[in-house]
Amino acid sequence: MPDPGEPAGWTTSQWFNTLEEPTLEQLRGRVVVMLAFQMLCPGCVSGAIPQARAVAETFAPLGVEVLGLHTVFEHHAAMTPVALAAFLHEYRITFPVGVDLPGGEGDPLPVTMRRYGLQGTPTFLLFGRDGRLARQLFGHVPDLRLGAEIMALALEQEMKAEDEPGGGRG
Amino acid sequence: MPDPGEPAGWTTSQWFNTLEEPTLEQLRGRVVVMLAFQMLCPGCVSGAIPQARAVAETFAPLGVEVLGLHTVFEHHAAMTPVALAAFLHEYRITFPVGVDLPGGEGDPLPVTMRRYGLQGTPTFLLFGRDGRLARQLFGHVPDLRLGAEIMALALEQEMKAEDEPGGGRG
Amino acid sequence: MPDPGEPAGWTTSQWFNTLEEPTLEQLRGRVVVMLAFQMLCPGCVSGAIPQARAVAETFAPLGVEVLGLHTVFEHHAAMTPVALAAFLHEYRITFPVGVDLPGGEGDPLPVTMRRYGLQGTPTFLLFGRDGRLARQLFGHVPDLRLGAEIMALALEQEMKAEDEPGGGRG
Amino acid sequence: MPDPGEPAGWTTSQWFNTLEEPTLEQLRGRVVVMLAFQMLCPGCVSGAIPQARAVAETFAPLGVEVLGLHTVFEHHAAMTPVALAAFLHEYRITFPVGVDLPGGEGDPLPVTMRRYGLQGTPTFLLFGRDGRLARQLFGHVPDLRLGAEIMALALEQEMKAEDEPGGGRG
Repeated sequence: MPDPGEPAGWTTSQWFNTLEEPTLEQLRGRVVVMLAFQMLCPGCVSGAIPQARAVAETFAPLGVEVLGLHTVFEHHAAMTPVALAAFLHEYRITFPVGVDLPGGEGDPLPVTMRRYGLQGTPTFLLFGRDGRLARQLFGHVPDLRLGAEIMALALEQEMKAEDEPGGGRG
Repeated sequence: MPDPGEPAGWTTSQWFNTLEEPTLEQLRGRVVVMLAFQMLCPGCVSGAIPQARAVAETFAPLGVEVLGLHTVFEHHAAMTPVALAAFLHEYRITFPVGVDLPGGEGDPLPVTMRRYGLQGTPTFLLFGRDGRLARQLFGHVPDLRLGAEIMALALEQEMKAEDEPGGGRG
Repeated sequence: MPDPGEPAGWTTSQWFNTLEEPTLEQLRGRVVVMLAFQMLCPGCVSGAIPQARAVAETFAPLGVEVLGLHTVFEHHAAMTPVALAAFLHEYRITFPVGVDLPGGEGDPLPVTMRRYGLQGTPTFLLFGRDGRLARQLFGHVPDLRLGAEIMALALEQEMKAEDEPGGGRG
Repeated sequence: MPDPGEPAGWTTSQWFNTLEEPTLEQLRGRVVVMLAFQMLCPGCVSGAIPQARAVAETFAPLGVEVLGLHTVFEHHAAMTPVALAAFLHEYRITFPVGVDLPGGEGDPLPVTMRRYGLQGTPTFLLFGRDGRLARQLFGHVPDLRLGAEIMALALEQEMKAEDEPGGGRG
């Protein structure tokens, strides 16, 4: 796992639902909510993916960006990018989704998953406006808590901005 | 669509969760509840598949058999038998599931789906104890109604059996 | 508890949502689904009352009558007929609801509740077309099973009718 | 409606689930989430009351206090304090609940409800750590948003505390 103070970000092989590959650099100044999921993970499909969609709708006005990351660590032959494309279409997922780069030979874990030491799927990765990883939330996260965690990050940076001389809202 | 009076049945390329391929012939005397589904169909995953599982548990003592039929008519490259195997594993589906035989060249519809004129997925096909197709229920079917339809078939044959000279329960 | 072969029925102090007090005599030929409930019973409010409403909608074409019975056995000062009237209005309950006659002095159980030996609320009482009590279902009853039980009663009498010389559907 | 800058608070006739009547004065330094509800309001029972319970569990460590306020503006004869006591018992509501003081002669609205100009029930009243009313949320409020609103208030005061010379966390 990277130094929590370091912006590290993801390494992907391709993206869906976006023309340009999003990076933490580029998203500096925004809160980034990234959902690491697998298309055949029941808890992702019934819980975390609808949550991610609702986060995008609720928090867009506060400068929050929602991204998906397809972190396949099992059933690799089933959860190919072609299958993912069909899944995104059928479930009407419109936020950008990246494919976590497959690991090296013999490694079932993809690169970003290994980098962040993810325990499994679903996991929400919350990045602050400065690009640092602030939270990893694995498994079922109630909406009340998820809303609170995101709000804390949305406000954190504003506070800092207000504290700085000559500061202001981004 | 076959003559509703004719036992016709399904044509499949392979089965999961069973050693022997189930046939209507073999299941004569039992009510058969067959769920035609696709693994990437949201209404199947959130609604009809849990229903089929509950039907199996609730109606087993009344001689009701639950089967799945994977009727892929879109995203063929995504919903392969390999992907289906992973899906059945992740969703802990334990009733027998057959793969509807792909249609001839250029035909996106698989064979059984075309034979019965299915409108889409999910569809419940209900067969009486005599092997005849009694009902096709497409889309969301409330549990109250599904329970009633299955019970009607479970009792139908018993009645007939009781009416026949020398008859009895199968 | 009355001889299950005997039509016994309910004893009430008043009715809501109907001009005429329903009786088993009068309902002969129909299946009667009676929900014994209390307005401050959480399982009744969240589960059984919405179920009773759905039963009324689903099974009306099959000659099924849905009735409520307010069987107050605790918090008597809170669940008065005046409070019940407000409850029925707020929850938009439109099927007829009777108030189970309070028990004699010192008896917290109302008369019908004691007569049928009800275990508590919610309880569904299912009466066949001949007016006999066929089933008592206490607590949470899944819709699949409730639909099946009601269908069995709906068909039972039809069968009998068909068996009788000169018989037919009512 | 009072000057939003003024601590005003509630006027009640009695409290349940607490020995001491809570006041805004006394709760200074804490965020107060007050749910105005009626015991026979379906949206309160199915939605807002379970939410209030979850808020109490989730946000207790952040210094958030949850209170109920029974603001009866209709069916007064049904929703008496005696009935409320039974309701709180049956629904296992353990946070403090006050009874909004009935309005003067001929006024169906209770005093606090009229003071804050509440539109109906359920309404969440959110008070900041300084005792000021920060938000009124009427009707269904998704958990994601409710969690965010409460978090914003929980952090607001901390920020101020940190900004003040000699300030600190309460």
